[in-house]
Amino acid sequence: MNNISLLVDLYELTMAQSYFVYKKDSRATFDLFIRDLPPNRSYLICAGLEDILSYIKNLEFSKEDLKYLKKQKLFSNEFLNYLSKFRFRGDIWAMPEGTVFFANEPCLRVTASIIEAQIIESALLNTINLQTMIASKASRVVYAAGNKGVYDFSLRRTHGSDAAVKVSRASYIAGFKGTSNVLSAKLYNIPAVGTMAHSFVMAFKREIDSFLAYSSTFPDTTTLLVDTYNTKKGIKNAVLIALYLKEGGYRLKGIRLDSGDMAGLSKTARRILDKEGLGYVKIFASGNLDEFKIKNLLDRDALIDNFGVGTNMGTSIDAPSLDVIYKISEVTDSNGKFLPTMKLSSHKATYPGRKQVFRIENKKRKFVKDILGLDSEKIKGRALLKKVVDNGRVVYKSPSIEKIRAFTKENIEKFDNKLRHIYSEYKYPVLISPQLKKLRNTLHLDLEKRQ
Amino acid sequence: MNNISLLVDLYELTMAQSYFVYKKDSRATFDLFIRDLPPNRSYLICAGLEDILSYIKNLEFSKEDLKYLKKQKLFSNEFLNYLSKFRFRGDIWAMPEGTVFFANEPCLRVTASIIEAQIIESALLNTINLQTMIASKASRVVYAAGNKGVYDFSLRRTHGSDAAVKVSRASYIAGFKGTSNVLSAKLYNIPAVGTMAHSFVMAFKREIDSFLAYSSTFPDTTTLLVDTYNTKKGIKNAVLIALYLKEGGYRLKGIRLDSGDMAGLSKTARRILDKEGLGYVKIFASGNLDEFKIKNLLDRDALIDNFGVGTNMGTSIDAPSLDVIYKISEVTDSNGKFLPTMKLSSHKATYPGRKQVFRIENKKRKFVKDILGLDSEKIKGRALLKKVVDNGRVVYKSPSIEKIRAFTKENIEKFDNKLRHIYSEYKYPVLISPQLKKLRNTLHLDLEKRQ
Repeated sequence: MNNISLLVDLYELTMAQSYFVYKKDSRATFDLFIRDLPPNRSYLICAGLEDILSYIKNLEFSKEDLKYLKKQKLFSNEFLNYLSKFRFRGDIWAMPEGTVFFANEPCLRVTASIIEAQIIESALLNTINLQTMIASKASRVVYAAGNKGVYDFSLRRTHGSDAAVKVSRASYIAGFKGTSNVLSAKLYNIPAVGTMAHSFVMAFKREIDSFLAYSSTFPDTTTLLVDTYNTKKGIKNAVLIALYLKEGGYRLKGIRLDSGDMAGLSKTARRILDKEGLGYVKIFASGNLDEFKIKNLLDRDALIDNFGVGTNMGTSIDAPSLDVIYKISEVTDSNGKFLPTMKLSSHKATYPGRKQVFRIENKKRKFVKDILGLDSEKIKGRALLKKVVDNGRVVYKSPSIEKIRAFTKENIEKFDNKLRHIYSEYKYPVLISPQLKKLRNTLHLDLEKRQ
Repeated sequence: MNNISLLVDLYELTMAQSYFVYKKDSRATFDLFIRDLPPNRSYLICAGLEDILSYIKNLEFSKEDLKYLKKQKLFSNEFLNYLSKFRFRGDIWAMPEGTVFFANEPCLRVTASIIEAQIIESALLNTINLQTMIASKASRVVYAAGNKGVYDFSLRRTHGSDAAVKVSRASYIAGFKGTSNVLSAKLYNIPAVGTMAHSFVMAFKREIDSFLAYSSTFPDTTTLLVDTYNTKKGIKNAVLIALYLKEGGYRLKGIRLDSGDMAGLSKTARRILDKEGLGYVKIFASGNLDEFKIKNLLDRDALIDNFGVGTNMGTSIDAPSLDVIYKISEVTDSNGKFLPTMKLSSHKATYPGRKQVFRIENKKRKFVKDILGLDSEKIKGRALLKKVVDNGRVVYKSPSIEKIRAFTKENIEKFDNKLRHIYSEYKYPVLISPQLKKLRNTLHLDLEKRQ
């Protein structure tokens, strides 16, 4: 889908038309943030900004789009004419991709004509939800695996083609080492990796025939799948192939375990391989893996070098959505002056005003707390939201994926180690500045009168 | 993404090259099926075929694709040359979209050159996984809501743009009445629906000002969101607007509840509305709804007319992936004769041979059992797999979405009512034909020797 300008909830457009009639000159600020961290998560990793900037650049309604909208019999000619010239002309502030952040901290802030700010809502939420959710899940997998390699094998179970490539990108940013998805590898310049499938083994009369065929085709890059019939026999067949390759001056790259007791099988495999002088043959494991299963395998001293991680990471299976929302925090009055606002609904109240997230370091350059404050406040600490769009012009150049990946690692490792434990109960402190607290309390009383 | 030919796991291509060298003339049959139903599900609804047929039609490797593959230093010039002329030339049999099916029943079967059959694996799995998972989840929501309307509100939380539109389509097939996603509505000719957001209410000085502005813009199609500040006051403000519209000859369409005790609030709202002669004003509910919450609301006699269902349906939150697999079931020998095969791995064994699913009706034309048998068997019952691709040519024309939707309803309602209960423990009988059983047992012994 090249033009996703119509990827918008209908109400954004109907509200826009009503604003067009009643509040054409209003400007507003919206915060995009995650209300609560999902279960088991103690941090999030921001991802999706590159796509958002590309969306903002390309956002316009084609003639065909306008024709479709006209047919809905909801929109006036004046408003459709406005849409035909529509471009986003406001400001966006955002955390760079790879930034660690927490509940209630805006990772993106929009200040624009209220019509423009509203129209971009659905696409922004959709983008940040997917990529941040996956980067955050993938980061847990990376740290559970310690110094072992993890690879994205999720293509077949991701939600469609767009998710398939975004998952590869987000997981690579989080520290994965490559992907099986060739399109992602091409689009994002990520290493493409792969082994072989059970069907390949089954297409030959004997397992060893399939091993021989594959390794003859790829003598230096073969990883043999050993569990199609009987894993122990499969390992022994792989050893025969490895020894055969060795005679020709080639090295079998690895074997893959995909079922059974993988901790035990990996030890068996390692022992057999090492006994034959095949210490260089890596053991690869796959099969419904995630951070919990990887930790469990490593706790049981599994001798696995690399993990292929698919469905559970690629769908963020234990939390397949984030509680990501986009809330208005200020709006201009009839004189064009910004006035803070907030939502009061039970359990869903928000923080008012134009805000910034300040991250505080200690003397050892470790992050010790964040302060959610007003943008106008002078708070010592790194301001995490940077201007990325200025009056509709994209002023931020996304770093290369390698730089984002390195930044992510550097960023997360400046937090207390406890943050990265997958069963962590650690709660990184996010404080509310006194000024913001005060504003919220005052406003609360004021808003209750607005009924 | 227009060309998704590279949306393939790298191993499909490396295996293809090895087949190209060692088994160029081999043909094989693969079954695409779901190994186990997810928790809470007692049936699945097949969806995704239309996209698969479009993928098959368009599948070819562009010059740019080939250039990328060449750079990987894995592929021979001969094989790249083969890929440059690649088209799928095999046969595909599939269940029409909207067909109810069960664990272990192939919903799609491919017979082709083993290279071609292998290369399409990733895209087929990705497509069926998403759309079948969503149609199956959405169907549960539809039946939990009984005669109430359900609408797709999931755009902001679906996994990317492709999932966003596929979710609208799959849920519409399953019986949803429309979507908030304008792009989906346009692409698939589905009704587009929408209400208003909290931000709209907050953009005005008083709630009632926002209500007045919106309903003046859309006097006949307004649904007012009443929970931004205080729901009961919001309902009263909506009543004022409804009475004002009534005087002008217009009808307020509805009010929307998005938080709080929605069963209780809906009764309060209904009472207040009815007292004022506003019986025609519908009550719309939204907010983390799914089949369980809708059933709970209706069990508590909530007076809700329509439900907006987002995240939980759009991510199939309690089962965000299906155990969907693609397994080889027969392969030709050196004489070109098809020989059945199967996988033996512990807990992952499959059924061999070219199979068909036969569905048996009783005299009242209700479905009473399925038989998974060999394609060559004469079993009385409807054969569910139809030929959709013949020697690479698409021979099946997808029905209109309205026809698929009607077929889905008709199909599912021919099963025992128990199947549709959301807490059902009912297990529809899927039997294995004696011939298939026998083949499996014989083959098992034979394959154990293949080590």
